[in-house]
Amino acid sequence: MAKYTKSMQNLIDEISKMPGIGPKSAERLAFYILKQPKKEIVDLTNAIIKLKHTTVLCKMCNNLSEELVCEICQDIKRDKGIICVVEGHNDIIALEKSGSYRGVYHCLLGSLSPLEGIGPDELKINQLAERIKETKAKEIIIATDPDTEGEATALYLTRVLKPLNVKITRIAYGIPVGTNLEYSDQATLAKAIEGRRII
Amino acid sequence: MAKYTKSMQNLIDEISKMPGIGPKSAERLAFYILKQPKKEIVDLTNAIIKLKHTTVLCKMCNNLSEELVCEICQDIKRDKGIICVVEGHNDIIALEKSGSYRGVYHCLLGSLSPLEGIGPDELKINQLAERIKETKAKEIIIATDPDTEGEATALYLTRVLKPLNVKITRIAYGIPVGTNLEYSDQATLAKAIEGRRII
Repeated sequence: MAKYTKSMQNLIDEISKMPGIGPKSAERLAFYILKQPKKEIVDLTNAIIKLKHTTVLCKMCNNLSEELVCEICQDIKRDKGIICVVEGHNDIIALEKSGSYRGVYHCLLGSLSPLEGIGPDELKINQLAERIKETKAKEIIIATDPDTEGEATALYLTRVLKPLNVKITRIAYGIPVGTNLEYSDQATLAKAIEGRRII
Repeated sequence: MAKYTKSMQNLIDEISKMPGIGPKSAERLAFYILKQPKKEIVDLTNAIIKLKHTTVLCKMCNNLSEELVCEICQDIKRDKGIICVVEGHNDIIALEKSGSYRGVYHCLLGSLSPLEGIGPDELKINQLAERIKETKAKEIIIATDPDTEGEATALYLTRVLKPLNVKITRIAYGIPVGTNLEYSDQATLAKAIEGRRII
């Protein structure tokens, strides 16, 4: 059974490592890459390399950024007194796409998960507490995922942040429970922001 | 609506150009790339660049190769007297995976398609005729796809090759008609090779 050339097989192996890409898709993508003009391929590899080189975390909110402070934190039109706490960067993107939120964010870079060894110290919770004290924020919206880890994180955050005398709200259960925030549709996310309640 | 950083959006745009990758998949892959350690990313970009640099067409059969002549044409165990004519490189891979064929191939690099302006001169048909004369091949198995273009190509090939006094066979209709050869399962492909008939 002769098969692909070595470099072809190598690329197929690399592509197969990606999430949601099966062996057939990897083959199709490798053939696509092979057939593209050289310019397209240079654009693609440059985009990959550039992403790795230019991306840093915003020192205010841990969002992805190409500068010290991200675009959202720099935006003078946004209400710095309302901080929406999310688990990951894709959650920020999802909420931004819903177009219903005009405050700023705080990305925890994960959720509490004892099984995976992620405790409060692994998340950006202390940084959030400091930020609330410094900026005198009016309201913290907890928008962690409505799954076990996300709920545990919300509960822990409430306990830690209550003494800071800040209004703490939880994103509304418009989102179907048990799923991930990033896959919710935009209308549902907008509803969820509207219907937030004090905890 | 603030969105991704410029380099992130740029990579998502590049990835979205690929076949079968929608916007959500492109986002997921870009986030995956961002989270990978640098070594993994270097492996990936190197694999892409290397594929483009090392891959050439076999001068015998037009298969993908890293040398002048591909592994299949170099293999002394394979019967050089039987040539299986296919449209594309993925067809060779599919037939090789079925494990039922021990001859060599000839890749036409397409099929007759007047609508797309692909006539006999765009395909490697003259090269095939020369090859048959030179190597005194015993049998030509036509394994073009069983769709309109593939059938037209098979018909044209039969007419052109008949005067060369070579046995011409067509891969059997074990393959469901109207589909593409590369998506057939291995057992069906094996049956199709077995049941080939003279035309």
